[in-house]
Amino acid sequence: MNRRVAIVMGSDTDWPTVEAAYQALDEMGIEAEVHVLSAHRSPEALREFVQGAEDRGIAVIIAAAGGAAHLPGVIAADTPLPVIGIPIETSTMGGLDSLLSISQMPGGVPVATMAIGVAGARNAGLFAARILALDDESVRERVAQYREKLAEQMAEKNRRLQARLSDEAAAPKK
Amino acid sequence: MNRRVAIVMGSDTDWPTVEAAYQALDEMGIEAEVHVLSAHRSPEALREFVQGAEDRGIAVIIAAAGGAAHLPGVIAADTPLPVIGIPIETSTMGGLDSLLSISQMPGGVPVATMAIGVAGARNAGLFAARILALDDESVRERVAQYREKLAEQMAEKNRRLQARLSDEAAAPKK
Amino acid sequence: MNRRVAIVMGSDTDWPTVEAAYQALDEMGIEAEVHVLSAHRSPEALREFVQGAEDRGIAVIIAAAGGAAHLPGVIAADTPLPVIGIPIETSTMGGLDSLLSISQMPGGVPVATMAIGVAGARNAGLFAARILALDDESVRERVAQYREKLAEQMAEKNRRLQARLSDEAAAPKK
Amino acid sequence: MNRRVAIVMGSDTDWPTVEAAYQALDEMGIEAEVHVLSAHRSPEALREFVQGAEDRGIAVIIAAAGGAAHLPGVIAADTPLPVIGIPIETSTMGGLDSLLSISQMPGGVPVATMAIGVAGARNAGLFAARILALDDESVRERVAQYREKLAEQMAEKNRRLQARLSDEAAAPKK
Amino acid sequence: MNRRVAIVMGSDTDWPTVEAAYQALDEMGIEAEVHVLSAHRSPEALREFVQGAEDRGIAVIIAAAGGAAHLPGVIAADTPLPVIGIPIETSTMGGLDSLLSISQMPGGVPVATMAIGVAGARNAGLFAARILALDDESVRERVAQYREKLAEQMAEKNRRLQARLSDEAAAPKK
Amino acid sequence: MNRRVAIVMGSDTDWPTVEAAYQALDEMGIEAEVHVLSAHRSPEALREFVQGAEDRGIAVIIAAAGGAAHLPGVIAADTPLPVIGIPIETSTMGGLDSLLSISQMPGGVPVATMAIGVAGARNAGLFAARILALDDESVRERVAQYREKLAEQMAEKNRRLQARLSDEAAAPKK
Amino acid sequence: MNRRVAIVMGSDTDWPTVEAAYQALDEMGIEAEVHVLSAHRSPEALREFVQGAEDRGIAVIIAAAGGAAHLPGVIAADTPLPVIGIPIETSTMGGLDSLLSISQMPGGVPVATMAIGVAGARNAGLFAARILALDDESVRERVAQYREKLAEQMAEKNRRLQARLSDEAAAPKK
Amino acid sequence: MNRRVAIVMGSDTDWPTVEAAYQALDEMGIEAEVHVLSAHRSPEALREFVQGAEDRGIAVIIAAAGGAAHLPGVIAADTPLPVIGIPIETSTMGGLDSLLSISQMPGGVPVATMAIGVAGARNAGLFAARILALDDESVRERVAQYREKLAEQMAEKNRRLQARLSDEAAAPKK
Repeated sequence: MNRRVAIVMGSDTDWPTVEAAYQALDEMGIEAEVHVLSAHRSPEALREFVQGAEDRGIAVIIAAAGGAAHLPGVIAADTPLPVIGIPIETSTMGGLDSLLSISQMPGGVPVATMAIGVAGARNAGLFAARILALDDESVRERVAQYREKLAEQMAEKNRRLQARLSDEAAAPKK
Repeated sequence: MNRRVAIVMGSDTDWPTVEAAYQALDEMGIEAEVHVLSAHRSPEALREFVQGAEDRGIAVIIAAAGGAAHLPGVIAADTPLPVIGIPIETSTMGGLDSLLSISQMPGGVPVATMAIGVAGARNAGLFAARILALDDESVRERVAQYREKLAEQMAEKNRRLQARLSDEAAAPKK
Repeated sequence: MNRRVAIVMGSDTDWPTVEAAYQALDEMGIEAEVHVLSAHRSPEALREFVQGAEDRGIAVIIAAAGGAAHLPGVIAADTPLPVIGIPIETSTMGGLDSLLSISQMPGGVPVATMAIGVAGARNAGLFAARILALDDESVRERVAQYREKLAEQMAEKNRRLQARLSDEAAAPKK
Repeated sequence: MNRRVAIVMGSDTDWPTVEAAYQALDEMGIEAEVHVLSAHRSPEALREFVQGAEDRGIAVIIAAAGGAAHLPGVIAADTPLPVIGIPIETSTMGGLDSLLSISQMPGGVPVATMAIGVAGARNAGLFAARILALDDESVRERVAQYREKLAEQMAEKNRRLQARLSDEAAAPKK
Repeated sequence: MNRRVAIVMGSDTDWPTVEAAYQALDEMGIEAEVHVLSAHRSPEALREFVQGAEDRGIAVIIAAAGGAAHLPGVIAADTPLPVIGIPIETSTMGGLDSLLSISQMPGGVPVATMAIGVAGARNAGLFAARILALDDESVRERVAQYREKLAEQMAEKNRRLQARLSDEAAAPKK
Repeated sequence: MNRRVAIVMGSDTDWPTVEAAYQALDEMGIEAEVHVLSAHRSPEALREFVQGAEDRGIAVIIAAAGGAAHLPGVIAADTPLPVIGIPIETSTMGGLDSLLSISQMPGGVPVATMAIGVAGARNAGLFAARILALDDESVRERVAQYREKLAEQMAEKNRRLQARLSDEAAAPKK
Repeated sequence: MNRRVAIVMGSDTDWPTVEAAYQALDEMGIEAEVHVLSAHRSPEALREFVQGAEDRGIAVIIAAAGGAAHLPGVIAADTPLPVIGIPIETSTMGGLDSLLSISQMPGGVPVATMAIGVAGARNAGLFAARILALDDESVRERVAQYREKLAEQMAEKNRRLQARLSDEAAAPKK
Repeated sequence: MNRRVAIVMGSDTDWPTVEAAYQALDEMGIEAEVHVLSAHRSPEALREFVQGAEDRGIAVIIAAAGGAAHLPGVIAADTPLPVIGIPIETSTMGGLDSLLSISQMPGGVPVATMAIGVAGARNAGLFAARILALDDESVRERVAQYREKLAEQMAEKNRRLQARLSDEAAAPKK
């Protein structure tokens, strides 16, 4: 099975959001490459990249775009690989335009849409890991460990809250 | 100046809407061709068509699509010609998804968005006519006549309403 | 690698939508099972199913729900497998509530959201196929053939439209 | 009758909002406990807590969550107690996603949804008080006093406004 | 503790929705009364009713309204009892206007908002039952039985689906 | 004819918005009074005020509220006077909730809704002036002068822009 | 004071909605005229009408329009009279576009927006009546009577509901 | 063919957005004039300008407005020239009101809507250039060069990203 993941973003200004996908892949032990390629401003370069992706060992493509966010859908039209879309937050609509432009794909050409913004970017990386884990023992283990860590962190946060509340209760009232 | 207009729709089920653009062009004396081509399902055929459009004498491209409506933007990325977008009404969102997917284009690649549905399709044809009228006396005359006809029709509708209301006022009350 | 896909729906009334996922999996040669299980009405049965899914050979879970559509997210919390969500159309909000309830997941627990309604259901099946195709030659071939068929169908629809328009042009005007 | 209220939040970052519920309960003389527990990140711990709540003397559960806000609905599925939901404001959608994810519950599993944000959190505490007041004389009195205080505060604010406006009217015009 | 529930609706045309609340209360063994009273068209009659409700043995008030749905909030302003709001579906906005008008109450005056339409009406009845169950053994039992019945029904629906799918699989393909 | 206008706001924090109505009335030479009165927090005081308004010489009532903005509708239910509503901007929904809560009144009880925020508040004052101008020569003159002033200001702004642009054009390019 | 009201609609297809305004005026004993005039299709005829309205004895103008509903605002720009706007329901957006296009006027040029559709049209007539009642004893009486009738009708509907429910309770259970 | 473009804005505060249209025209070598003219505050001056535009050598009109954004539609009603609309971002609704007020024009009077805000303003200038390029060799060349420059810039940004990522990979981990 191919193992690498490619992340494509429509604008380099999306990086502060998209970086969360890159980091999640790194935490899951998955090799990733990142590209700035636009469905609108550099369509030729995009096509060339997408059509060659499979042969270059890419297994999953993550694409981030905002506004009239055509990038994930246009990529999904040019490759048989699974494509994951990250809707970038927009100043005018909060990213609702990005979300609808990515999720409302016609039957036949699927895109896996994540949440708007950084949470969605992180989950794009984690979803790619869940896919690759199907056939990769080491990724599978990292996914499992990560799920345990999440529960751990919640438990730790809960303990800290209990401690703080009980301190406040013990303190003399102002 | 080129004179023909090409209408592209993402699905043949869009024809009942798109037909209004075709008819408006016909009324304005403009030659038009119509194609079913999808940014997602037939990307290769679409590219071939769009990149050859200018050389084949196309001056303006009208593109209709619904949902994650990428067609007009993807066309505008591949041609220097003016591209007009028609958002198709969708059953789930009334066409708001189509409207946002077409109108919220990034700076650099303009698409001229019309209203959702049939009114927008008719206006796509009329807008193409306003463009071509800039350099074509006969289209200019048709555009002028059409504007007068619109005002005429309103006046006629008003007269009919007045007649009906005055008939009702004259009639013995039930 | 596991090969089976499980489809879960929150209500049996979702079947007319969800069936499109089932059919797409069948077309792709993927074995599927379907369950009616609710995050709200039968939480115990749901948990039991989800926590046992991986061991029973399930590779991907598709979950459909409407309104406060918690099913896909709740499943993703209980399994490391990739989970695909189908937002069911709702009479009051057209499915916008379902879409947001499914897509806006917090960082850490990814759900792959598809379009609202039947198109989304079909794409859920096709997306599962793109995942399984990564490690299954026969699914990979079916995915490739399907993509060609889509382009074919568009071309055929275009030919029929051209024929009809040219017939109409040849016919004496009414 | 049980008397304690449990407040659960999906993330400790929700505390600045949720604190208003805690304070309202305190003002109404109702004992409360607070927990950080997530439907997605710590589902096991959440279940354990919810299923044991009634036996531990909890009468009402208040749950706050944002985005794909499944927490209140998932809790309501696992307990017969009244569950009150607080939609947390989100940066991208202002909390509309949270509101719909909490309020649009299917028939059979009710959640009492409050307003988005701090006002909703305060009202969650007050609504729990209105419930407990049905069988608790001392809470009933506090609820009654609070309602009078609200009217008082409005009257006081009105008096201050009148004073200021009449001062400004008396002052020589700039 | 008071035991009766009052259901108030802003228009008698809301009955097909509101009836589901009435039936749910009946199933839970709770006595209910129903009134047509409008915050806008019969404000005097409404006030009289609301201010006398507690003394007449009403424990919970359920209020249904659509559009600029002020009824639940106006009732909550005039009584210390818990008030549950049902947003009625509207033809123009699907009930989003009703939902926001009911849920976005200011801090100080809580209303427990249910889902838009029939599901919300049913849940209004069930939520009232969860409140009354806190101090009423017989209602508590009915709530518990109902929760079991819900899970049962889901299991039964699942069995029927499995049977149908396995019949279809066994049947010779068309 | 009565001549005074009463402005009511649901919270004293609305004053920065509502002040624009007060100033517009002042500019139009109309006497105004301002009150902090809430449909939810001080319903008794509100009723008393509204029901006595006509007798105290109030001709028009302007009411501002945000969120579940019931104030204008509740006032309109208790008086035959024209009521003008100002939707206050909200942090979560931008004031869409306020707008819908005020504008979507049922047939029978009209409220004249203005734009969200300061522009709407100013227009509330100006609309009251347009009403009073019908029977008051001096207000009519002020309304007429104001309309001329608006056009003047636009012309002046246009002149300044032309000057600036022509200065920039004359300046040596950087 | 002028006494007549003019109703203007942007399209004769709006009549089924607008008629409710006409009927309300008739019930209130107010003389009305109706015109089909469009801000877009017959701008000259519209201007002529609006600029002459005051001199012809029109006191209030009611304007109905849908979609990009510019009619009420454009009228308000050309007359000092009070202008009331009716947002027409649209098939694609339910009338949200009409509502925003009418209500979100800039400071300086007020339009009194009513609810979307028939309820709004009825209220437009009733709001005009509330304005004219300020200086017309006979309209004032009709407005007062109407308000009483509304309350009466609600009371009657309530009585009928009580009768039906008590009949059903008396009937032997099926 | 006429060659000049006129930019009209409803308020001088729109200039920071509208300037992007002016600059794009300048880059494309197209002469432009800018005016502050309002459909609501200076309707007479606007009419005079629009009706004389064609004779003064204007080929395309760009109009920017926010909120109840009537300017582009009102201009399109008074001229046969192509009109391009820029929806200005609004503080309350992010510009959704502007977008709908501009795009949802009735059949017969087309307006070419661009994206909300600065990107839309830039595209308005570029779209005018695409129109004028149809009959102007020098503009056509600039449009072509600009499209190449866009692709170049993307490629350059991609190279810089690759360099940075490879530097980070080479750097010793913190």
